[in-house]
Amino acid sequence: MFVIKIGGSQGVCFESIAEDAARLFREGQRLVLVHGGSAQTNQVATQLGHPPEFVTSVSGFSSRRTDRKTLEIFTMVCAGHINKRLVELLQKQKANAVGLSGLDGRIWEGARKDAIKVIHQGRRMILRDDFTGKVEKVNAALIRSLLDAGYLPVLSPPAVSYEGDPINIDGDRAAAATAVALQAEALIILSNVPGLMEKFPDESTLITRIPAKDVEKFMAFAEDRMKKKVMGAAEAVAGGVRQVVFADGRIPAPIAAAIGGKGTVIS
Amino acid sequence: MFVIKIGGSQGVCFESIAEDAARLFREGQRLVLVHGGSAQTNQVATQLGHPPEFVTSVSGFSSRRTDRKTLEIFTMVCAGHINKRLVELLQKQKANAVGLSGLDGRIWEGARKDAIKVIHQGRRMILRDDFTGKVEKVNAALIRSLLDAGYLPVLSPPAVSYEGDPINIDGDRAAAATAVALQAEALIILSNVPGLMEKFPDESTLITRIPAKDVEKFMAFAEDRMKKKVMGAAEAVAGGVRQVVFADGRIPAPIAAAIGGKGTVIS
Repeated sequence: MFVIKIGGSQGVCFESIAEDAARLFREGQRLVLVHGGSAQTNQVATQLGHPPEFVTSVSGFSSRRTDRKTLEIFTMVCAGHINKRLVELLQKQKANAVGLSGLDGRIWEGARKDAIKVIHQGRRMILRDDFTGKVEKVNAALIRSLLDAGYLPVLSPPAVSYEGDPINIDGDRAAAATAVALQAEALIILSNVPGLMEKFPDESTLITRIPAKDVEKFMAFAEDRMKKKVMGAAEAVAGGVRQVVFADGRIPAPIAAAIGGKGTVIS
Repeated sequence: MFVIKIGGSQGVCFESIAEDAARLFREGQRLVLVHGGSAQTNQVATQLGHPPEFVTSVSGFSSRRTDRKTLEIFTMVCAGHINKRLVELLQKQKANAVGLSGLDGRIWEGARKDAIKVIHQGRRMILRDDFTGKVEKVNAALIRSLLDAGYLPVLSPPAVSYEGDPINIDGDRAAAATAVALQAEALIILSNVPGLMEKFPDESTLITRIPAKDVEKFMAFAEDRMKKKVMGAAEAVAGGVRQVVFADGRIPAPIAAAIGGKGTVIS
């Protein structure tokens, strides 16, 4: 079984990914797709008059300020737009997809962090009433029962807190938690780059192989958005997933290419 | 088992409905919730610069013009906003809800009508590239497997065409088709009126009982939005559903009230 994370950045080709996933599915492969929706949330939130704000945590990660209004727009875009677009593309290719958010059946559960420590204009601050968190539990039974019944699950943020609040979570790390819970053969993380590069964005410096035990050392090469992917990869291999691949989501048959060894293979 | 259709018009109280549904669910009752999203789609579509257009069919029904852009907004609002809001409210009340659109697992399938005959400024016209249709098949197996596993399904438009296109369908009639497919004990249609009235909007003229065999005769009393509810009720009783109730969705414990015989009971 493969868990495939689909990035939403410019250039990533949903049509090629859906075509490739549907082909594998029709051939009998068990697949779970996971996506996020950050880029499109920014666009819709701006159009709806509630433009995005980003904050930097004290540990140096940039993340979205998720107040209640942002949470609702994020949920609407991820679970209602991107998720259903992928389900439509898969249905057109005769793959019977079922799209679910982490709220549904408590597929992705975790603690809500309603207060986050951030650096704002060089000063430490606490932001309250935030709806963010981290996936700590995966409802693998529900995902497996869908796979067993012949469906292709497509999972979307938000997750759900233990109290039932929707929470914004990182899609790459949610995909990693899902791969661990299902003990997937591989986690494939598709984005708009060919993999991890020694000198980003020089694609000729692609790192093709990383031994699983060394993955954390390679964090040094990860720019911005790649950091959470490397963190997710480390969590996946630590949790027993045999292989993680960072691969190019812009090319035809991107999943087949990743399975064939293209991209950065961590194993 | 009860199928409960939740209207989206002003005054309908999602909080009370979710609280009541969750209580019944925790008591062991099998429930399926169905909702639409017309009113909120209008609002978001206007904010996104693509205001709604309504057309009148040659048979006299008013319906939404659903071009591709409208379809995407409608899908996003129904499946991503309203559906997840209901799922959240249910999760907070310890009911493990699973929200799905008709696209997911092909829960609601039907033919797409891409050309619709309408009356525009007194003249007959054909509108093309529309994404509308009618639910002709319900994936009862998927809904039953969720019920059997202890989940509370919450179903949202759009449906899916035989070719895999999302299609705008009427929520009341989709709820009726679902109640027939599941052979529900009752279909409860909650809206912002107490039921069918002889002289709308005079609530003192509420029609409290309609024999199932006479339901079509009562179409004469149905104003606008009530027409499709009466049509759905006729389809449900013709399909073997023993009871349909038009009931008030603005009051506390609205489902219990409807089960207790308040509203317009067709049986």
